[in-house]
This record gives sequence, C-alpha cells and structure tokens, in this order.
Amino acid sequence: MCQLLGMNANTPTDVMFSFTGLACRAEEHKDGFGIGFFEDKGVRLFVDHHSARQSPVAELVKGYPIHSENVIAHIRKATQGRVALENTHPFQRELWGRYWVFAHNGNLVDFHPRLHGAFRPVGDTDSERAFCWLMQELAKAHAGVPAIDELSCTLAELMPQLHRHGTFNMLLSNGQALWAHCSTHLHWVERRHPFGAARLRDEDLSVDFAHLTTPQDRVAVIATEPLTQDEAWTPFASGELRVFAQGRSQPVC
Amino acid sequence: MCQLLGMNANTPTDVMFSFTGLACRAEEHKDGFGIGFFEDKGVRLFVDHHSARQSPVAELVKGYPIHSENVIAHIRKATQGRVALENTHPFQRELWGRYWVFAHNGNLVDFHPRLHGAFRPVGDTDSERAFCWLMQELAKAHAGVPAIDELSCTLAELMPQLHRHGTFNMLLSNGQALWAHCSTHLHWVERRHPFGAARLRDEDLSVDFAHLTTPQDRVAVIATEPLTQDEAWTPFASGELRVFAQGRSQPVC
Repeated sequence: MCQLLGMNANTPTDVMFSFTGLACRAEEHKDGFGIGFFEDKGVRLFVDHHSARQSPVAELVKGYPIHSENVIAHIRKATQGRVALENTHPFQRELWGRYWVFAHNGNLVDFHPRLHGAFRPVGDTDSERAFCWLMQELAKAHAGVPAIDELSCTLAELMPQLHRHGTFNMLLSNGQALWAHCSTHLHWVERRHPFGAARLRDEDLSVDFAHLTTPQDRVAVIATEPLTQDEAWTPFASGELRVFAQGRSQPVC
Repeated sequence: MCQLLGMNANTPTDVMFSFTGLACRAEEHKDGFGIGFFEDKGVRLFVDHHSARQSPVAELVKGYPIHSENVIAHIRKATQGRVALENTHPFQRELWGRYWVFAHNGNLVDFHPRLHGAFRPVGDTDSERAFCWLMQELAKAHAGVPAIDELSCTLAELMPQLHRHGTFNMLLSNGQALWAHCSTHLHWVERRHPFGAARLRDEDLSVDFAHLTTPQDRVAVIATEPLTQDEAWTPFASGELRVFAQGRSQPVC
C-alpha cells in the first residue's frame, strides 16, 4: 500500500515538516514518490522513481520552502504497474483551463472503464485509469469550472463507482479546493489559532506552529496515518468524501 | 526574448553541461525557467518563477544527472503574461496517452485562435495559447499517435499559421522525437563519434565528451544561440522545421 499526504490552507504554507514525516515512511514505500504544489493556478509537480528517503528531488522538497495553498504527495509501493516515472503519482491533467492533481492509495480490481473522452492514461496503473475516468466524467457533468460545492456533489456521485472496484483512498485538487475520499485509511487534522507544537511520530523533529503563523491562518492536513503526536487526528469513515477549502473541512452534499 | 534549449539523443543522456550554459544567460532572462525531461513515456517537469541563476530548483538540475532522450528547457524574459508559475514554460499536456512538452521563444500578435477542443490555457501567455491550438489541431488530424514522419508533415502544415502572427521559435516533444521550428534565432549541433571536447561560451567550463560516451551514441542539441565554442553549430533558416529523432536531424516533408 502507498501513503498519501494532502495539505489545504487559507494562506500559502510550506509543507516541509509534514513531507519530512511522510518521507520517513519511504523505506517500505520505496517505488517512487511525488509531490504537487499549487501556487495560484500554476503547479509544480516533482516526481521520482527513487525512494523519498534517497532521492535528491526529495531532499530539495524537504529543504526548499515552497508556499502553497494545496499540496498532494504520495509515496509508492507498487501494486499494479511497473516502477517507472509514468506510473508515479501524483498525476496531472488540464480541464477547463485548470490543472488537476490526483493521487491514489489502494487497488482497483477489474477496473477497465470506457475512456472515450480526451483523457488517456500514459502509464499502466489502475490509479491513472481512475483519474482519467474521473476527469472524463467531470468534463461531461459541467461545461466549465463549477463552484466547489457543485464539484463536490458530482464527485460524491462518482466515488462509489470507483470504491466498488476495491480500495480507493484518494486526494484530488484543482488549486481551489482539495477533495479526499476514504475506503480504508485516511485521517485529517485542522490547525488553527491558538496554534501549538507538534512532534513527528516517525522522526525526532518537532515544530511550534505558534512561531510560524498568524491568528487568521488555517491549515488542514490529510494523511493515510497520523503524522504527528500531540494532535487530534480524525479518522475518515469508509466511503466518506470530504472537501477542504480555505484550510477548513466542509460537508459534502 | 527568452532562450530555448533542446536535446535529443539515441541513448539516455544527461544535459547538465548544456543547462549550465543556458542558466548562465539567466541574468537577463530572469522571469522564470523550466526544464522537462522525458524518461521513456514519463516526464519530469521542473519550473520556477525565479531566475535559473538563483533558483534552488535550477541548482538541483545542474547537479542531478537525469538521463533522458528528450529534453526541453526555457529561460524566460516576460513579453506577454505576468511573472507567475502558470506562465512558466515548458507547458505540458496529454494527448493519445502520451505527454507533450512545449516551449516557445518569441511573441505572437493578435493571436486568439478558436479553442473548441479539450485543450485550454491555464495562464495568459500567447505561448500557451499556441500550444493548446497545436494540440487541438493534432488531435483533429490523427486518431492516435501517428508515426514521427506523419506528425512532422502535420506540424509542417500548422507552423506557418503560427509564424504569420509573429516570432515563433519553438520546441515540442512527445518523448519519441523533438521538433524545432525557427522564425528568427535557433541553432543546432550534432555530437557523434569521434567525440571531442567543448567549452561553454558563457562560463569557464569544458567537457570532453569522448570520456562520457560510446561510439554508438548520438546527441543533438538545439539552442537559441550556440552554447559552446569549438563546435560547428548550424543556424536554422527562418520558417524551417526540423525533427530530431535518435540524436539525428531528419528532413521534414
């Protein structure tokens, strides 16, 4: 199984602390990693088919404070598809003049959707097939970028069609919001004023967010397993879809 | 004006030497840089809206030997579109289950093509509009990935329609070949056995390719202005389209 990390904030925020926590877990998840940062409508996507513990690209990400409102990261343990750059999450496509970034943890069985639209997989994973199908169905459901709430409703209709093929934990963002769906393992935490300190579970590293934030800041972090001690992570229910916007978790219709 | 760098090789080759030469020129071209590497069908795209002289991302690229058969790099001096990540070349899209990477040097005037297909610009540059239009027209001309020669013929029909709107020096690759079109400034050089030494024009750095290659290796490098002394760079003619495959320049129909 792979591991996911997502971040959504109401102000551009760096994710170095949380990514360091994720990268600690890359010994087991050694078949590549990737991280996509939205900066307004633009995206930086760093991928490497080396482990996040050894990759020079991961070292860059751990040391270069990229400030972003939406981040999706993934460390991979291959289940379907060989270890190759084109099979490395997150995946990216453009729809309605917006970039979309997607990462998946799980395994879809007998999932061969009819892809008759403009989105085709480049690699050979079930994950990229699921992403192309999602983009195709969104393109059919709306004529242009809809409001976040409308997108959430459409995604709520689509998720069960993927979930029934197997394990489908996923993160998706278009730079305006971040959607998270859980089949088996996904947790989230909201950080807001008054900010406290947190310590990584897997490495001797702690940070006091009070020194790095203003009272208005709100940051939500989503991860396969809680990354920190001393914070109240909430588990997702199986089949639950949540949308994160402006650092706040909102209900999905 | 921006500057372009392309590399096409018959064996995965690192481009650190040439990219170092390009980055030297980033003092004037300070409005961002980007570089895309194909590794088989996969792509790594590094972009930054900082100058390639200062960016930590550029430092990574100069020091991490990424081996690729097709590379496109760009340093930007903004003419149209503000300095922002979404306006930073190269741009990337997917078509027919293949990634396409594109960079442009020049300025298109009164260029507002009808974009009725699946490709929409995310930023506000003439360059990304041109790329979306090219993708749309390629999608209409072929049902799936055609042979390199057929793609070259289609591109030869499309280039004049862009060229007539202004300066259109461009590099385009789908990982199988690299196409280069010149309006004003573009040069290329082919490196093959027997390999010699070359020295950058803009920095005191030289390399002896004989120590790094085998007799079968072939590498073509394309750049706005020649990057090295002691090599025979050939200028493109205005309106000329060339295709580079397996490190060799081939005629376009």
